[in-house]
Amino acid sequence: MSLYAVRMDVAIPDDLDPQIRAETIAREKAYSQDLQRSGEWVHIWRCAGQYSNISIFDVPDNERLHEILWGLPLFKYMTMDVTPLATHPSDIRA
Amino acid sequence: MSLYAVRMDVAIPDDLDPQIRAETIAREKAYSQDLQRSGEWVHIWRCAGQYSNISIFDVPDNERLHEILWGLPLFKYMTMDVTPLATHPSDIRA
Amino acid sequence: MSLYAVRMDVAIPDDLDPQIRAETIAREKAYSQDLQRSGEWVHIWRCAGQYSNISIFDVPDNERLHEILWGLPLFKYMTMDVTPLATHPSDIRA
Amino acid sequence: MSLYAVRMDVAIPDDLDPQIRAETIAREKAYSQDLQRSGEWVHIWRCAGQYSNISIFDVPDNERLHEILWGLPLFKYMTMDVTPLATHPSDIRA
Amino acid sequence: MSLYAVRMDVAIPDDLDPQIRAETIAREKAYSQDLQRSGEWVHIWRCAGQYSNISIFDVPDNERLHEILWGLPLFKYMTMDVTPLATHPSDIRA
Amino acid sequence: MSLYAVRMDVAIPDDLDPQIRAETIAREKAYSQDLQRSGEWVHIWRCAGQYSNISIFDVPDNERLHEILWGLPLFKYMTMDVTPLATHPSDIRA
Amino acid sequence: MSLYAVRMDVAIPDDLDPQIRAETIAREKAYSQDLQRSGEWVHIWRCAGQYSNISIFDVPDNERLHEILWGLPLFKYMTMDVTPLATHPSDIRA
Amino acid sequence: MSLYAVRMDVAIPDDLDPQIRAETIAREKAYSQDLQRSGEWVHIWRCAGQYSNISIFDVPDNERLHEILWGLPLFKYMTMDVTPLATHPSDIRA
Amino acid sequence: MSLYAVRMDVAIPDDLDPQIRAETIAREKAYSQDLQRSGEWVHIWRCAGQYSNISIFDVPDNERLHEILWGLPLFKYMTMDVTPLATHPSDIRA
Amino acid sequence: MSLYAVRMDVAIPDDLDPQIRAETIAREKAYSQDLQRSGEWVHIWRCAGQYSNISIFDVPDNERLHEILWGLPLFKYMTMDVTPLATHPSDIRA
Repeated sequence: MSLYAVRMDVAIPDDLDPQIRAETIAREKAYSQDLQRSGEWVHIWRCAGQYSNISIFDVPDNERLHEILWGLPLFKYMTMDVTPLATHPSDIRA
Repeated sequence: MSLYAVRMDVAIPDDLDPQIRAETIAREKAYSQDLQRSGEWVHIWRCAGQYSNISIFDVPDNERLHEILWGLPLFKYMTMDVTPLATHPSDIRA
Repeated sequence: MSLYAVRMDVAIPDDLDPQIRAETIAREKAYSQDLQRSGEWVHIWRCAGQYSNISIFDVPDNERLHEILWGLPLFKYMTMDVTPLATHPSDIRA
Repeated sequence: MSLYAVRMDVAIPDDLDPQIRAETIAREKAYSQDLQRSGEWVHIWRCAGQYSNISIFDVPDNERLHEILWGLPLFKYMTMDVTPLATHPSDIRA
Repeated sequence: MSLYAVRMDVAIPDDLDPQIRAETIAREKAYSQDLQRSGEWVHIWRCAGQYSNISIFDVPDNERLHEILWGLPLFKYMTMDVTPLATHPSDIRA
Repeated sequence: MSLYAVRMDVAIPDDLDPQIRAETIAREKAYSQDLQRSGEWVHIWRCAGQYSNISIFDVPDNERLHEILWGLPLFKYMTMDVTPLATHPSDIRA
Repeated sequence: MSLYAVRMDVAIPDDLDPQIRAETIAREKAYSQDLQRSGEWVHIWRCAGQYSNISIFDVPDNERLHEILWGLPLFKYMTMDVTPLATHPSDIRA
Repeated sequence: MSLYAVRMDVAIPDDLDPQIRAETIAREKAYSQDLQRSGEWVHIWRCAGQYSNISIFDVPDNERLHEILWGLPLFKYMTMDVTPLATHPSDIRA
Repeated sequence: MSLYAVRMDVAIPDDLDPQIRAETIAREKAYSQDLQRSGEWVHIWRCAGQYSNISIFDVPDNERLHEILWGLPLFKYMTMDVTPLATHPSDIRA
Repeated sequence: MSLYAVRMDVAIPDDLDPQIRAETIAREKAYSQDLQRSGEWVHIWRCAGQYSNISIFDVPDNERLHEILWGLPLFKYMTMDVTPLATHPSDIRA
């Protein structure tokens, strides 16, 4: 298993049909919550004042990370910054 | 209480006395672990392949965040990137 | 309570309906002034020669800061740069 | 009179003599506080987690702003970002 | 009085109505020349090979600088970089 | 198993003792070749005209990638850029 | 023969006709696979979480590299970063 | 006479009428070739894998350089990077 | 004749011998003033709050510009940004 | 054969022994002139006002380009930017 920090910056086009917009955001929420419940999407925080989130994923490998991110309903409106993580020697739980 | 994501990039000068270096790193570890045990330093991960970490802090306010970071034994060798966090509407624990 | 400096750069699309534009800017002004009167939006300055402002907020925590910024009528046309602030040791009022 | 926002990032060399360092920081503090008392250095905030400050100056013109900043005891260790400010149309005090 | 160097990069949308485009550019020219004649817009140079100019303004304060730049007919198509200037100690006219 | 592309930019201080320099580079070469033979360091190419390489690693997880990179004899003189890789749908070997 | 690492970031406009989009992506795949079979497009990896790939080309010269990249069906939607490669002295196959 | 290196990055909008596009590119080619024949446009190279060129101009002064670049049929779709050149002391032809 | 805007950012090493420092700055001033008197160094302004200047040169060609800048006593401590200028169509003196 | 544009920015440490400095620069000049005479180093221009050059190389492949640049006496003090070139369709000599 590997951990990853991912920052997602969202930029939905201003002229997107409002209903499609609402439906896509609803699907995004359900998609994220399913993965949170299954344990692969460990944390999701809003960056204060930004249409962005910082998330932590705990998945078997890079393939699975890519599969999850690629499948995000808002993927095409997102800019991704992916940082692979390892155990820190100061971590009291390590 | 407020959450913050902080990325710390460490660059210790090559000519630092090895003993001072070792002692400073040991103090850094103890300092971090004390704050992890008290619950203010919630997570610390190593960025794979980098002398850097991504940490999550849960503190009363900006003052306390600054006090903690300013007091890091390695502070003067670090570049900090601080992101204040808020609850994400998709968070199942929110 | 925590202080934050926020720089907001505004880029309204050139083809936005002029009436919607005018109404949105009017709502933005009222929204800002209400928060100035309530004491949470402490300062707002125009960056000379730019469609940008630098503002200071005094709010309970990151959640409240996010709630305020996310609710800005012009939010979707803004790029935000958020800097959490603490007391400076040279501040004569500290 | 003109207002300016100035961000100062401080990087004191690691090998500076500790006494000179302490004296310079003390002189910096006195210098800043004199200007705060005279009303030209209106605000100074620490950027949380950084050896940086964001300050607001209220001075007659660019000449005076330069004179103040150039005279800072820590000037040669600082990187400056200067933003001239104007009245914002939403400012309730304008 | 304060001097400012301002670089203006112009990006007019490709689909702007040609007549509106021509009229706006004509108004921009008249606006600039009026201010040159009144002595506030001291210099304007074209950056060779770019749709950009570097200009020098001599105005009472930041307010007036902002008023002039905000009023530019091409303002909404411009990216501005503003540098407040002071007397240089090597200037033979100082 | 996961693949990673890593770009390493090397900057050895000019005043490093020549013998230490030579020994470190020799150890770096042996370290790399051992990992190439064991199959974890799949490719290493020199970036033409730069003291840099682009390498491909095939390792069990982020922990192992970090362990390898952290152990590089030249690690403290390197700037790392790590990109986790996944199978491309156009890859004929996928 | 020369080797090159090329990173391709893809940004297909949101309003592209879905059928044209699908056809272009299919042509892109066939184009890439033909060159993989002929031995000039040596590797193609997906950057995890990004609409991007890192590829390795082995071609006679810069002319041929340009001919291949320019002919990509998705070329006009791509941002390219090209790094010419040489043999690394630590490469065990060199 | 002065030499200049100019890098031109071309980004033609995806929705430009194909006939106008073709005509503009044809005019661009003729324009460039006329100036090559007259000796002012000394070199033009394609940047491999990019819709970009690096060109060398040999013209009387900045005015003439600007006149040439401003007149390019593709000018409004180009981003320019202009570097004025001088004789290098190692040049065997100097 | 050609005009150029040049921004010079100065960073004198902290450990430079104070006498050499003072002499170099004095020579820089004399050098600049000689060229101002001869008419080639047309303007020099201090960037407020920065150890930087913005200057305008009026010289025969790129060779002469290079000769002047290369000869600056502080040249090796300066970062230069050179912008060749042309006549602006709105310039009332053009 | 392949063409490359290479920009070399030179930063020789201020404390380098003057004689070593002079000898290295002399060797650099001889090295460059030998390659100019042999026809591989086709052009070298000084960037006006900068300790930088833009050069054009005409060599068999990436290996040879790397060999030449790596062998530069000033290599360790240089930052390199390498752009592989191809024939431009507007080149009258193509």
